[in-house]
Amino acid sequence: MKRIYMDHAATTPVDPRVLEIMRPFFSKKYGNASEPHQFGREGKKAMEESRIKVARLMKARDSEIVFTSGGTESDNLAIKGVALANPDKKHIITSRIEHDAVLNTCKWLEKFGFSVTYLPVDRYGFVKPEDVANAIKLETCLVSIMAANNEIGTIEPIGEIGKICSEKGVLFHTDAVQAYGKIPIDVKKMKIDLLTVSSHKIYGPKGVGALYIRDGVALEPLLQGGGHERGLRSGTENIAGIVGFGAAAEIAEKEMKKESARLIQLRDRLIKETLTIENSYLNGHPTKRLPNNASFWFAFIEGESLIMHLDMKGIAASTGSACSSKSLEPSHVLLAIGLKPEEAHGSLRLTLGKQNTKKDVDYVLEVLPEIVETLRKISPFKGKWK
Amino acid sequence: MKRIYMDHAATTPVDPRVLEIMRPFFSKKYGNASEPHQFGREGKKAMEESRIKVARLMKARDSEIVFTSGGTESDNLAIKGVALANPDKKHIITSRIEHDAVLNTCKWLEKFGFSVTYLPVDRYGFVKPEDVANAIKLETCLVSIMAANNEIGTIEPIGEIGKICSEKGVLFHTDAVQAYGKIPIDVKKMKIDLLTVSSHKIYGPKGVGALYIRDGVALEPLLQGGGHERGLRSGTENIAGIVGFGAAAEIAEKEMKKESARLIQLRDRLIKETLTIENSYLNGHPTKRLPNNASFWFAFIEGESLIMHLDMKGIAASTGSACSSKSLEPSHVLLAIGLKPEEAHGSLRLTLGKQNTKKDVDYVLEVLPEIVETLRKISPFKGKWK
Repeated sequence: MKRIYMDHAATTPVDPRVLEIMRPFFSKKYGNASEPHQFGREGKKAMEESRIKVARLMKARDSEIVFTSGGTESDNLAIKGVALANPDKKHIITSRIEHDAVLNTCKWLEKFGFSVTYLPVDRYGFVKPEDVANAIKLETCLVSIMAANNEIGTIEPIGEIGKICSEKGVLFHTDAVQAYGKIPIDVKKMKIDLLTVSSHKIYGPKGVGALYIRDGVALEPLLQGGGHERGLRSGTENIAGIVGFGAAAEIAEKEMKKESARLIQLRDRLIKETLTIENSYLNGHPTKRLPNNASFWFAFIEGESLIMHLDMKGIAASTGSACSSKSLEPSHVLLAIGLKPEEAHGSLRLTLGKQNTKKDVDYVLEVLPEIVETLRKISPFKGKWK
Repeated sequence: MKRIYMDHAATTPVDPRVLEIMRPFFSKKYGNASEPHQFGREGKKAMEESRIKVARLMKARDSEIVFTSGGTESDNLAIKGVALANPDKKHIITSRIEHDAVLNTCKWLEKFGFSVTYLPVDRYGFVKPEDVANAIKLETCLVSIMAANNEIGTIEPIGEIGKICSEKGVLFHTDAVQAYGKIPIDVKKMKIDLLTVSSHKIYGPKGVGALYIRDGVALEPLLQGGGHERGLRSGTENIAGIVGFGAAAEIAEKEMKKESARLIQLRDRLIKETLTIENSYLNGHPTKRLPNNASFWFAFIEGESLIMHLDMKGIAASTGSACSSKSLEPSHVLLAIGLKPEEAHGSLRLTLGKQNTKKDVDYVLEVLPEIVETLRKISPFKGKWK
């Protein structure tokens, strides 16, 4: 059977070129980077080269990159790190469509006396920069708005938000897990103070991420221990993973422009043809969206069933985020852009990647309408709904 | 030049058999384990099989294992997790020779109103179980005593300590990063509630660890997010890493007994012959020590110079822990067993591993006395000291 993977927002395969570069660091160059001997030094050297590569893809300095275990840890470090370093400023601003790693960290801080403003978004999922400006108070320690949404692909105006935060003297964090390596990011021009990235979304290995921390920003570390990463992230460095992340960032830097153009073509065809299915709707903005993201909702359909039927045809897709796939709650992102719970339950996210071809899109476009039709025939919603 | 690695307490190479098992999970079976489609399911299945293997090596149930990014995160999760889940019990007991991931986490909690008892150890590095019993108060939420020391190799009486904690109704955590896979551990018999392990110390990959959490023990998670690992550790699971950890645990289970016996022979010869060097001393207990650990101090010598000279001869060794190698402070472990700062500075840790042979030990025994002699000739300490 065909196996077509269209869930690249959940995770990506490791690029074989990346794996090749990682390989020596498992069983040959395996030293602990904290040790001064030859084995340790070769690990340390490789790690510092990766730091430069990861930094370059966001126009940061290598001294501003702290390696972590992934996007979730980076988000936690950024938000809790700022919160704990600023005990007299107990207000945070974020949006209603953030990833759970941001939202649940903010909710957690509410238990400890922090107040959080969850900004609304419009029907496309855009945060209004003026809303950010209006929400900033004297006690605001941090604004955290994602660079691009993981479910609906909407690209947020983070340059404008960064400018506002900078003018008002409030730190600005952005979760760029989905944007990094797909659209250009310039932390200096965009006035970003903290930025979260993850290796496994850009064809690097899982279990590695980074937090960009602008020089001069003070953070309380999340993990105490041996004082690795300039004291900001203790724990023996995952050299093979970090080397893979660096290699993936380097490849993304070289290939992003061309690959994005290719993906946009595939994406737009996928969107255009899918929308010819009756009662189907696009989530997010038609153009201001990630090159690889196509997000829909179908009336009278249960998204989980749709995913299962696609899976039986060899197509890996998602209802929304990988995390929310586990829960039966409707997506908080889709509710925030104005969908009703029953509408949000009919969602489908197809996220394209390097390996996807025009043929893959053809196959999805062949299979999808049939499945939608079948499911609607047996739908318990149909009569009750419209 | 020869390259002899004798720093296995800092980190180990990935066993080639482990790497082979990990390989498909980078670029082929790369699904996000939270996704219900085929790619996700194969990741999830592999992860659960690894959980069983990691659990089995400590006689735990798989439901009691939470995967983390490593030992430091596991220690932080155990200690902060218990502390935050028990806000009315603000006392912790630990020892003066714990790893920095435990010590610095305890120190960090002191900033937030916790009080910590740092128990002394005897000249071999043993914590006295009766000291633990005497230190327990009504407000004690946790006792954290390591299973075996990373610098001097001393194996602590954790079974006795576990029994005391269990009788007194206080949770018991042990950092078993150095012990796991080297000496038998039975969390049930030893009455352990929380136990930290790390993959890269047992020939698995870096960037993966686990925390054993006895069924029924409540913890506040350290990372908020998508609710992975039953809500206890959010973040996309590092499947390849976890699979590697499981494979390493399985191999350790099969080979531990035989390999330990082999290492003890090598170790004892290394110790016996090294102690024929004038003014050389063993750190830790002669027999109640990890099978692979040989720790010394040499009078009139600076440990860093010794490491550098060994490195020039192709031998990778450490002064103490990988973490403390970065700092110029004398080891807190060596001070705790009664060494003077100038004595502690003359330390050398040789930790053996799978690849080391009798020939490697011969080579070290040939090279080491010469280096010690050379360094003593130029030592600024000599005259001033004894």
